[in-house]
Order: sequence, then structure tokens, then C-alpha cells
Amino acid sequence: MTLDNGRSRGGAASMTGAAMLEDVRLVDHHCHSVVRGPLDRAGFELLATEACQAAPPGCTTLDSQLGFAVRRWCAPLLGLAPHAPADDYLAERARLGPAEVNRRLLSAANVATFLVDTGFRAGELLTPAELAAPAGSAAGEVVRLEAVAERVAEGGASAAGFAAAYADALAAATASAHAVKSVLAYRHGLAIAPEPPSAAEVRAAAGRWLRRGPGAALARLDDPVLLRHLLWAGVERGLPVQIHTGFGDSDLDLAGSDPALLTGFLRAVQGRGTPIMLLHCYPYHRQAGYLAQVFPHVYLDVGLAVNHVGARATAVIAESLELAPFHKVLYSSDAFGLPELHVLGAELFRRGLTEVLGGWVAAGSWSAPDAERVAWMIGAGNAERVYGLRG
Amino acid sequence: MTLDNGRSRGGAASMTGAAMLEDVRLVDHHCHSVVRGPLDRAGFELLATEACQAAPPGCTTLDSQLGFAVRRWCAPLLGLAPHAPADDYLAERARLGPAEVNRRLLSAANVATFLVDTGFRAGELLTPAELAAPAGSAAGEVVRLEAVAERVAEGGASAAGFAAAYADALAAATASAHAVKSVLAYRHGLAIAPEPPSAAEVRAAAGRWLRRGPGAALARLDDPVLLRHLLWAGVERGLPVQIHTGFGDSDLDLAGSDPALLTGFLRAVQGRGTPIMLLHCYPYHRQAGYLAQVFPHVYLDVGLAVNHVGARATAVIAESLELAPFHKVLYSSDAFGLPELHVLGAELFRRGLTEVLGGWVAAGSWSAPDAERVAWMIGAGNAERVYGLRG
Amino acid sequence: MTLDNGRSRGGAASMTGAAMLEDVRLVDHHCHSVVRGPLDRAGFELLATEACQAAPPGCTTLDSQLGFAVRRWCAPLLGLAPHAPADDYLAERARLGPAEVNRRLLSAANVATFLVDTGFRAGELLTPAELAAPAGSAAGEVVRLEAVAERVAEGGASAAGFAAAYADALAAATASAHAVKSVLAYRHGLAIAPEPPSAAEVRAAAGRWLRRGPGAALARLDDPVLLRHLLWAGVERGLPVQIHTGFGDSDLDLAGSDPALLTGFLRAVQGRGTPIMLLHCYPYHRQAGYLAQVFPHVYLDVGLAVNHVGARATAVIAESLELAPFHKVLYSSDAFGLPELHVLGAELFRRGLTEVLGGWVAAGSWSAPDAERVAWMIGAGNAERVYGLRG
Repeated sequence: MTLDNGRSRGGAASMTGAAMLEDVRLVDHHCHSVVRGPLDRAGFELLATEACQAAPPGCTTLDSQLGFAVRRWCAPLLGLAPHAPADDYLAERARLGPAEVNRRLLSAANVATFLVDTGFRAGELLTPAELAAPAGSAAGEVVRLEAVAERVAEGGASAAGFAAAYADALAAATASAHAVKSVLAYRHGLAIAPEPPSAAEVRAAAGRWLRRGPGAALARLDDPVLLRHLLWAGVERGLPVQIHTGFGDSDLDLAGSDPALLTGFLRAVQGRGTPIMLLHCYPYHRQAGYLAQVFPHVYLDVGLAVNHVGARATAVIAESLELAPFHKVLYSSDAFGLPELHVLGAELFRRGLTEVLGGWVAAGSWSAPDAERVAWMIGAGNAERVYGLRG
Repeated sequence: MTLDNGRSRGGAASMTGAAMLEDVRLVDHHCHSVVRGPLDRAGFELLATEACQAAPPGCTTLDSQLGFAVRRWCAPLLGLAPHAPADDYLAERARLGPAEVNRRLLSAANVATFLVDTGFRAGELLTPAELAAPAGSAAGEVVRLEAVAERVAEGGASAAGFAAAYADALAAATASAHAVKSVLAYRHGLAIAPEPPSAAEVRAAAGRWLRRGPGAALARLDDPVLLRHLLWAGVERGLPVQIHTGFGDSDLDLAGSDPALLTGFLRAVQGRGTPIMLLHCYPYHRQAGYLAQVFPHVYLDVGLAVNHVGARATAVIAESLELAPFHKVLYSSDAFGLPELHVLGAELFRRGLTEVLGGWVAAGSWSAPDAERVAWMIGAGNAERVYGLRG
Repeated sequence: MTLDNGRSRGGAASMTGAAMLEDVRLVDHHCHSVVRGPLDRAGFELLATEACQAAPPGCTTLDSQLGFAVRRWCAPLLGLAPHAPADDYLAERARLGPAEVNRRLLSAANVATFLVDTGFRAGELLTPAELAAPAGSAAGEVVRLEAVAERVAEGGASAAGFAAAYADALAAATASAHAVKSVLAYRHGLAIAPEPPSAAEVRAAAGRWLRRGPGAALARLDDPVLLRHLLWAGVERGLPVQIHTGFGDSDLDLAGSDPALLTGFLRAVQGRGTPIMLLHCYPYHRQAGYLAQVFPHVYLDVGLAVNHVGARATAVIAESLELAPFHKVLYSSDAFGLPELHVLGAELFRRGLTEVLGGWVAAGSWSAPDAERVAWMIGAGNAERVYGLRG
């Protein structure tokens, strides 16, 4: 399903709207679930920004590309006119209630498979199965490497036993998972030594960490040796390793999240055969495109960015298709909390990619069949191949 | 006033030229004044570039986006055809004389309020009041933190007394100012420790600096401890703190001027309530947009860049409107020396923003009233709010 | 020659295709030669990417902007339809044979002068004279600073004699050359101390390197002191110094190839009068544009990138024309191995620059004569001036 109906569809050269991906059910290879309960305006505003605080007095986080895109693309799904005022939108949203809003919006995203990161605030969110239900989608799990370590620590591991306990816990946690994920960018930054730490280094670092004792001190693993150990454990596990790169919330040091900082690590793991999935990447998506071209095991998406840049999604998508081979680019929404972000991810991606590829067809640079094939690859085919979703 | 008259104005969806901001008198929240006397060709060329030397033999700095934009937009204001040759332009400019040229060009910029950085070569320039006179504009002052310190040093402060003397001098210098400004990017680069230096560190650093003695050695404060102290003193003062980021003249190390390098500092001052204004930002304006989204006290502009990229202003403005909430983006020209730069700043901004926002309206992504409101916010409203200009 | 004929040519304001540079024979100021013998599919694919390995199973490196551009622009030169399938293209290419393919494609590039880097895998490639023959072009040589040093080492220099032997060898190797070139970015990264190393430092570093003994150990000079010495020796030689910056193959650390890291070095050599040519630059071409504006001796191109980004060439070319004065931007292909890359470099550059400049003329920002003049400067005139090609 796409959200406007008035367009004609006369071949790729004249495509508008989301035409090129209209019939493609997307694979969202990295997202989160949505909140179960009702949201007041303050709660909604905070889920519509990467800031951790409200906007300055007299201002609203919805005066943003993302806020405008919600009013443009989601308001009609609640029965309102496009661009409905934010107050009207939130009032109608409250009147319909979270179950109905989730149902309508998640269906509209038209996603075949959600791969869901379950490692962040999962208690407030629908389960992956509940997320997938409205549109008859499939759901798979993405396991956060750091969250598994934090559970191991809370469970009372010893310094000497940490590495083995972590390996066991990771194996158990990922028994039916599709991928693992690292938030190294948030906890330390991506500038790390390329090789895995030694067993002795891991033991010493685990000792330092575990001595902090239970509770908040253990709740946030930020030791660079252990973070690096986890990343290598993820590589050894053999599932695709998703790595947060580029912007995120205010916890992050943006200059340290440039994926180019991973170059040594990427070289070191190249022989293992484990796909490395660079998530988000903005504003370093051109750097990510270079890595995806020169390293056979490196992939990228511009999820999260597409939602946040709204009307600029077309421009960012175009930039992501410069150096990266087309078999290396994937779709994700990185939606968190709001079902609106699943709609925007899918709609802005479908429309943006159609505009970009359709423009190249119209200019004679690409053939229409090539464009249709690449649109399918990025929207679904590459993820099906890398994650074995057809197996 | 805008500079072409032949356009129709049929609502935002079909807007061209500077239509969306035609009736908005801008607030230029960071600029310099213009030279008082006549300029020969060499002098004009050097004010039309960030280089400190003439172009190579046989070349001219006016073979640049900025030079072409002067010929396009300023020549008609001197009674010449658009794109008049540079020689003709300079001849007519000389014939009219600086007073008349300044009058014509400064009026054309149609700026309500100039906030003027008075800390650089002020002796050669019109006073802020003289700058504002031609168009009945208001003028406010932006005080350079480093210039105040250099005056304190020349005045004979002791190491032990420097901090107190600086605090007193800053209070006096900013009694009626609208903002302070840091040129840390030029003197050290933006990679600084986030916390303020201790009193003992300031005393020791002041001692080292003051021992250099009067004259040129004191004329350029480049001690990183003192620069950091000044920045925190600026934050404590409570006025908005403008920070030069991104490109500038050849004194600067571009890689060290990425505003993302300020992340730790921005986090450290977040609780103070002082607005931090990231100036210019190019080519790191996307990084600045991220900072403006996640930190409630951070703002940005793409002044200076808009003038220098000329025909590419639309593209740069569009990029500045990705992650930044619309209540966080401001207009500035950063014009220095040439009244032409006040014209270009305003004209290229008005036209570029109209094209960007009008394009989104035409595509159905934004509503026309939203576009009009955002244009006003960026052109004037945000600056009025942050600097208290309506008070 | 340009590759489509159906366009009208009604002045710059309505220009399409490659019109603005149709009659300009380009100067390609940095390229490599093409392979002499036949290529199988695997060999062709590896020359069509910066990766050192084949694409993942089931994928092809030709599913890329570069691969699509080959099928679009080169297939007609082999008598096939635009967008012919890769299999058909490679079959026809094999049928025609390398001599005929080289002849057709090199002629189509319509290049007046090739400046050829002869320092990389030259044994597999046509000589510069053979490269130039098909279109009656001229050929000049670009000498790699590191390749000369490696020959000196293989020849048995002593630590104490290295500097003098290198100076002699460089003088001999460049007797008729047009430029020297540094691959510092590949061997160390561009973050170097700005000043030249002392004679004692060079002697010590040469001793360490030469003790590795002949063979592979000497074949790749990566000592940072010696690399810096070579760069200064290149500056002293007085020919334009080309420096690889930005992306390249997987040997390179992208974050270390930002040309802004050269700022201190550029300042240090500013007084020498030696032009510094920043090659490629992507994704740091905006940083390069800043350097080209503020330093009178700094130039740039976006060669290599234009080939690899294909349908996005127009966007990248536009970004390269923001801060850089127009007398500082040059054309190069950086083609290596495949004659297709000479075609793409020229065709994508001609079409992209025409679209960019023609768009500014159509919008009224530039005059048509200015656009024609700038197109010629970038396509040929600036290189003629800097390299003395008319002398």
C-alpha cells in the first residue's frame, strides 16, 4: 500500500510517488518495536526527536522535518487531511487509542519482515510478534551484544569466568536470532584497535567492571576492552553483525561514530565471512559507501536518517548510492516507539528511491529494468540474501 | 526589497525568486561592518576571498561563485546590467564613491537588525550605527571574547589578577551587547577539554602569556587554557555565545573546526541555559544540525558559506535543514568589509530558502503556511526570540 | 566527439548532454594507461571496482554506478544498444579484441593530452605513447615519488647516501616529466608534520628501511619520515606535485586521506611557488575546495569519483564548484586499466559540467559566456597554464 492514489504509472521514466516499490513488501533489517500504551504530547514529542529533553520554551520538537512528515504522511491514515495541525493529530491519535493507531500505521508500512532490536527499553514496547501482527508480517530478532553482557554481569559472573559465560549467554540469546548488534559508538566510539583483546586483557577488564557491583554501575558497559571483545564474539557467532554508526541521541560523540574509523577492524575480520552491517551512517554515508565498495563483507543503510530528514530523504538516499555497489545497500527504518516512524521509514524510502532511480531513468542514464531490479534489491532482496530469509 | 520584479507570486507552491521572504526584514545575527573608504581592485579582490594573498598571475579571485554573484546581484544596484564585467563594475563603483555604494547596497539588503562583531579591524570600518543608517536598521553589538582579553593584557594585568580583571572587562564591554563571540577555532581549534580550567590553571596560563610582554606577542591570544577560560566566562555572562565553526581564512585548520568537536563542551554547559550559536559550520553543517537537534541550547547558521558558494546557496541551505529543528536555524551574512556581502547574504538566503521551501510545498511534502512560518522563523523570528530583540 | 547526437544546441541556457564542452579537447591531468591484452570477466570486474576481491557469491561489481555507466556510455561505442546486458557487452568486447576496443574507446574520450602516472603496474599497460596514439593525443609523464625511492633502494643505496641518490634519481626520472605524484595517503595517511625531516632523520630512517633487504620488504616504502622527505624533494623539484587524497582501494584508511590534514604542510610550502594538485578528494572535495580558495598554490580535481559515482557525477561536480575559485579546478579521469574509464571520465565530466553550469545559466545566476569560459578553464585551460602545456 502507498499513501496517495492519484498518480499514473507509466514506466520507470515517469514514475512518481512510491511507484517503483509499490508492490514490494520491504524487509526492515533494523528497527525497534512501538510503545504499547497511550502517549501524551510530551511523551510523543520526545519519541519524535533524538534529544533527551523538551524543546526550548515556546518551541516544539514537531517543528522539524520529522514532525512535518508525520503530519503529511500519517495524518491521512488517521482520517485527517495532510498537514493537519499537530494538536489535531495528537487529539485524533488519543481518541483512536494506541491499539487502533498501531494497527493502522503498522499495516500501512507494508513490511514483509521486521528484524527487531530487542535490547533497548523492551519492557515498554510491543513484542516483535505483536509488532508484526497487524500486517501479517514476519518478525525476527536482533540481539544487542552489550545487553547480553550486562545480563551476564548482573547474574554474577567472575572475572575469570566472564568470557566463557558471555559466550554461553550469547549462544543462548541468539539461538533463533537473525543478527547481533553493537552500540560501541554510544559506549566508546568507533576508534578501536583492530585486533581482538587477549584472554588476559578480557579477564582484567571484566574484573574492573564487575567490581563496580550490581545496579546502575553494571547497567552500562563502557569498557573499551570488553566492548571490543563483544564485537569479536559477535563476529565469531557468525550472524550478521549490525553496528550503529553516524548520528543518534545526545549520548553519542558524533565525530567518533564515523564508520571510516572501523577500517582496521573491517580489514581484520574480512576473512571470517561474517557480514558487517553499517547502520544509519549519516552524515558519514559516503564514507560508508566507500567501505561497502572495497570490502566484500560490508553493507550499509541510511535508516534513521531517512525518517529524520523528511523532505530531504531523496537527497540522502541519492548520496547513499554513489560508491556502494547495489547489492550492498539495505532498507531499515530504525523506528523506535512511535508506529509513525515505521510509516515514515517505509513511505519516505519508497518515494525517495523511486524519485532517485526514476530520475536516472528519465535522464537516460539507467534503463527502467535495471532501476526496478535495484529497487527490489535494496528494498528486500539484499536483506533476504544476507539474513537467509528465504531459506 | 528584492532584486527582480518580473516574477508572479501565486502562493508558496509556485514561488520563485525571494518571494517567501520578500516582506520579511531579516535579522542578521552575525556580521561585520563595511570599509569606510575607497577600494582599489586589489583591495576589493582581497575582501572577496578568504585567501590572504592575490590569486596566481593571470587569475582573479572574482572568478569564483562569490565574484560571479557580485556581478549578478550587485551590478543592477549600481545601474549596470546583470553579469557586468568586473572591470565595469569596479569602475562604476569607484565613480559612485563609497558613501553612495554603501547606501545603495546596504539598503538593498533589507535587514531589520544587524548584530555586529566589532572585534576585528574595527578601525577601518563604519560604526554599527553608520552601518544601520541607510536602511533605518537597528544595530547591536557582538563582543569578541579574545579581543577583550587582549585589551586586558595590554592594559597591564598580573597573572593573579587576570581572571578578575577579565570578568570586569567583559562585564563592562558587554553592558549593552547582544552576544559574545569566540574565535577558538582560529586560535587553537575546537577540540578542547569540556570542563572549565581551574583558577590555578588560569593563573599559570595567564602568567605565561603576560610574560610575552606588550605588542604583537600579546595581540593574539592562543593559549588553550585561557581560550577555554574565556569561553566559560562567556557562558557565565549569560548572553548567547557565538562560536566560529567551519571554514574561514587560511589561519584556520579546517579539520579542527568541525563543530562536532565541541560535543563535550556542549554537554558540560547544557545546564546553564546559555544559548550556543554555531556560526557558518560549512562543510560541517550537517554535524551542526545534529547538535542543534539533540542539545536544547544549540543553534546554527550557514552564513559566510551562503555568500561564498553563490549559485550553490540553495543546496547548502537545503542541507542545513535536515536534522536541525526549525526553531534552531538562523540567518547571518558574516559579511565583512564589502557592502556587496550584505547584499549577497540577504539575497542568496532569501532566494535559496524560497526555492528550498517552495520546492517542498510544490512536491506536496510541506504545506504553504508551514513554509511561510518557517521562512519567517529562520529569517527573523528565531533571532528575535534568542536575542530578545522584541523586548 | 560526444556520444549522443539528438540534442539541439541553443546556447548555454538550454544546454543538455555534453554541449558546453563538445568542442573542447580535454587535458586529463592525471590518469593511468590501459591493459594491453584481453580480459576475462573476472579481470574486467576487478578493474571496475576499487575492491581487491570479487563481489560476494551471486553478486557482481558491475551492479554499481560505474558498471551501469559502462553499459550506458560504452556499449554504443561497441555497436550495442545503450544499457546492453553485461554479458553481451563483455562478449562483444572479447570479439572485437583489445586493440580495437582500445582504439574505439580512447578515441571517443577526445582528450588532447594525457598526463600518465607510470608508477603502478606499468608492465601490464600500454605505454603513454600507445595510449595517446588512437586519438592523436599528446602524452606526458607523472612520476611517482615513492616508485623512484623504491628503485633507489633496490639499486643498493646506503643510509648515508640515500638522500643524494634519491635526488639524483628523481632529477633523472623527471627530466621530461610534467609532474610528480605522492601516494602518501596509501602509505601512511596525510596527517604529517609540516616541516621537512632533518638530514639526520632521513639518514636514520633510510637505514631502518634499507636493512629490510631487497625484495618485497623494499617494494613498499611506508616509513613516514622518508615519505615526508620524498614529498619535500618533490616540492624542491619544482614540478607540480600531485597528491592522492580521498578514497581509493582497500589499502587506504579513508579518514586519514582527508586533504584538510595537509593544511600545515600546505602552509609550509606556500612560499616555494610549487603548485600542489589535490587529486580525487571525494568525499572530502568540499574540504579541498576550501584549501584551493585560501592557498594560492593549491588545486583540485574530482577525478576517480566522477567515474565511480556515475549517474551522480553531476552532483559531485556541483559540490566541487562551491569554494574553489574556477582557476583552481581541473579535469582528470584517474582511469586505470580499462579504456572504458577514459570514456566515462570524459563523458560524465562533459555532461555533468554542462548540466551544472547550464543550470546556473538557465536560472539567471550565471551568464552564458561566463559558463563557456569556466567550462574551458576546467576542461583544459587551467591544466595548460599550470603544466605549461602551451609552452
